[in-house]
Amino acid sequence: MAVYTHLGAEELARLISEYDVGELISAKGIAEGVSNSNWLVETSGTGAGTQRFILTMYERRIELSDLPYFLGLLDHLSERSCPVPRTIHDRGGAAYRMERGKAVAMIEYLPGVSPTRPTPAQASAVGAALARIHIEGRDFPLRRANTMGFADNLAILEFCGQEALGGIHPELPALLAPAREAAALDLSALPRANIHADLFPDNVLMLGKQVTGMIDFYFACTDVMALDLATTHAAWCFHADTNVYDPERGEALLSAYQAVRPLEEDERALFGRIAQGAALRFVASRAEDWLDTPEDALVTRKDPMEFAARWRFYAENGDRLLA
Amino acid sequence: MAVYTHLGAEELARLISEYDVGELISAKGIAEGVSNSNWLVETSGTGAGTQRFILTMYERRIELSDLPYFLGLLDHLSERSCPVPRTIHDRGGAAYRMERGKAVAMIEYLPGVSPTRPTPAQASAVGAALARIHIEGRDFPLRRANTMGFADNLAILEFCGQEALGGIHPELPALLAPAREAAALDLSALPRANIHADLFPDNVLMLGKQVTGMIDFYFACTDVMALDLATTHAAWCFHADTNVYDPERGEALLSAYQAVRPLEEDERALFGRIAQGAALRFVASRAEDWLDTPEDALVTRKDPMEFAARWRFYAENGDRLLA
Repeated sequence: MAVYTHLGAEELARLISEYDVGELISAKGIAEGVSNSNWLVETSGTGAGTQRFILTMYERRIELSDLPYFLGLLDHLSERSCPVPRTIHDRGGAAYRMERGKAVAMIEYLPGVSPTRPTPAQASAVGAALARIHIEGRDFPLRRANTMGFADNLAILEFCGQEALGGIHPELPALLAPAREAAALDLSALPRANIHADLFPDNVLMLGKQVTGMIDFYFACTDVMALDLATTHAAWCFHADTNVYDPERGEALLSAYQAVRPLEEDERALFGRIAQGAALRFVASRAEDWLDTPEDALVTRKDPMEFAARWRFYAENGDRLLA
Repeated sequence: MAVYTHLGAEELARLISEYDVGELISAKGIAEGVSNSNWLVETSGTGAGTQRFILTMYERRIELSDLPYFLGLLDHLSERSCPVPRTIHDRGGAAYRMERGKAVAMIEYLPGVSPTRPTPAQASAVGAALARIHIEGRDFPLRRANTMGFADNLAILEFCGQEALGGIHPELPALLAPAREAAALDLSALPRANIHADLFPDNVLMLGKQVTGMIDFYFACTDVMALDLATTHAAWCFHADTNVYDPERGEALLSAYQAVRPLEEDERALFGRIAQGAALRFVASRAEDWLDTPEDALVTRKDPMEFAARWRFYAENGDRLLA
C-alpha cells in the first residue's frame, strides 16, 4: 500500500510520450496495490477530452513472464464488454514497457468505489459479473497455473510449522488436517476457465449496485470456476465487524452467478469442500505474513483467525449453501 | 507519504453528501502529504461534468486552531486569481468538518505536475507566482506566527546537541554558530505578508512553464516576504543530482519575483544572510528527523548535509545574488 519508486514529472512525461494519449497533465501516486507502485495519470488525450489511466510499476512478486497473461486477459475480457480495465498499448503495440529495469503498464481508469459493507444487491451484481468473466474468459488462449491452490496452501501451513502457528493462535495448528483434506480433493472433473482468484471487495469498483470494474488480476489463473465462486463468496458474504455469515448476501451472490452460469452437478456436490479450501488459503497466506511481519512494523497484519472462522462456517454449513 | 486512516466507500459517500458536489464516483488514497491522509475524489458534480477534489484528513502536527488560517488563505488567494486551490465548503458553510475526531477538508483539485528538474523558465514562473501571493495575501485578515523561524531552527539544533550532530556528520556542529547569528538577525524593519514558507518544487504544480497550483500551505505564516523568496530560492535553484547552484535558475527566479514586487533596499541588503538562515532551517529539521528516525526505518531520511552545502553557498555568495 505505497508508492515504492519515485518517478519524477520529467520521467513520467517521457514515459507517457511513448503512448498515443496526449501530454501529461497530472500524476498522483496512489496508495493501492500490495507490491506495485501505482499512479493515477491524466493526459490531454487525443480527441475531445482528457484521459485517465492507472500507471502500474511492478515491484515484486509479479513474474515478468506472467504479464502477457494478466494484461492479455484484461484486454480479452474488456473487448467482450466485461467491466475490467483494458491495457493501453504503447506506440509499438507493447502491453508493458521496461523502465529502470522494472515493467510498467498503463491500465484504463474506471470509475467506482469499493464497498466495505456490501449489500445483497451488490453481492448479486458481483456474482453475475464473475460468471460473465468465467464464460467470456474461456476462449482466452493463454494459460497460467494457480500458484495459490490447495496444495500450495498446505505447503505454506506446513512450512510455518505447528509451533509457530500455535504461537499465533492456539486453534491454528488444528487447521493443518483440513488443509491436508483440501489438498487431496480431486477437482479434475470440474469445468475450468481463466479465473480472477482474488475477487475481494477491494478489487471491485462499483457505482451503487452496478459493477464498474473488476481489477487487480494478479492472482488470475486457469483453474476450476467453482473455486473462484467459493473464494468470492468467502470474501463478500461475512459481516465486516462481526465476521458472521450474511445469508442474504450469500444467496444473492450464488443465485446471480447461477442465473448466468448454472453450476454443474459435480460442482454443487463439491462446493462446500471447495469453500473450506478457499477459506484456508487466506488462513495460510495471512499466517505466513503474520510470521514474516515484525510486531512493531508499520504495516497492519491481517488476522488469520478471521478466515479460520469462515472455514468453520463452511465446514458446518458449506453443503447446505446450494441446497 | 501514506494514507493513515482507512475511510470506507460508504463513509466517504456520507461525508461527500455534506457538500453540494453530487454523488461519489471515485476515491483513491494518494501518497502525498507528510502527516495527512489524502484522497483524490471524483463526484458527479451539480452541473454538466464531474468534479474532482483532494480530501485531506489532518492526522498530526497540524493544530486545529490553525486551519481557519490555512484554509481561509487558500480561499482569499484563489478569489484573487492566484493559482492556489480553493477550499470547498460544506452545505453549512464550514471550511472543515470533524470525522472520527479528526478534521477533514475538501480542496479543489488542480492539474499539473511537480518538476523535479526545474528549468529557468519554470523558476521564473514560480518567482512571479510567489510575488503575486505576497501582494494578494497582504490584506488577508488572519495572522499566524512562523513556528519555523530562525530562533526555532537554533533551538532545534541546540536540542539535538553538538555530539549527536557530530554523529550525523562531523561538519554539522560548526553550523550552530551561523544558526546563532541567524537567530540574532533583526528583520523587524522588513515588509511582511502572509507567506507560503515551504515552496519546494513538490508543492508547485506546473503545466510546462505555467504554474497551475501552489499547494500544501501548512507552513504558511505571517512573516517577512524576503524569507519566503530566499526559501524558494534555496529550494529551486540547485541541481538535484550534484547540489550545485544553477545561476540561470537563480537569476530567473529573483528577477521574475522583482518584476512583480521589487525588493526594498533593506531587503536587498539582508538577502544573503536571510538565505543562509533559510538553508539552516532545513539543516535543522532534517537533523532532527535524522535523529528521530531509526536507521532501518522504511522512511527515507533526508540528508541534512544537502542544505549545509546550500548554506555554505549563501555564506560565500549570498550578497552577490542581487547585485
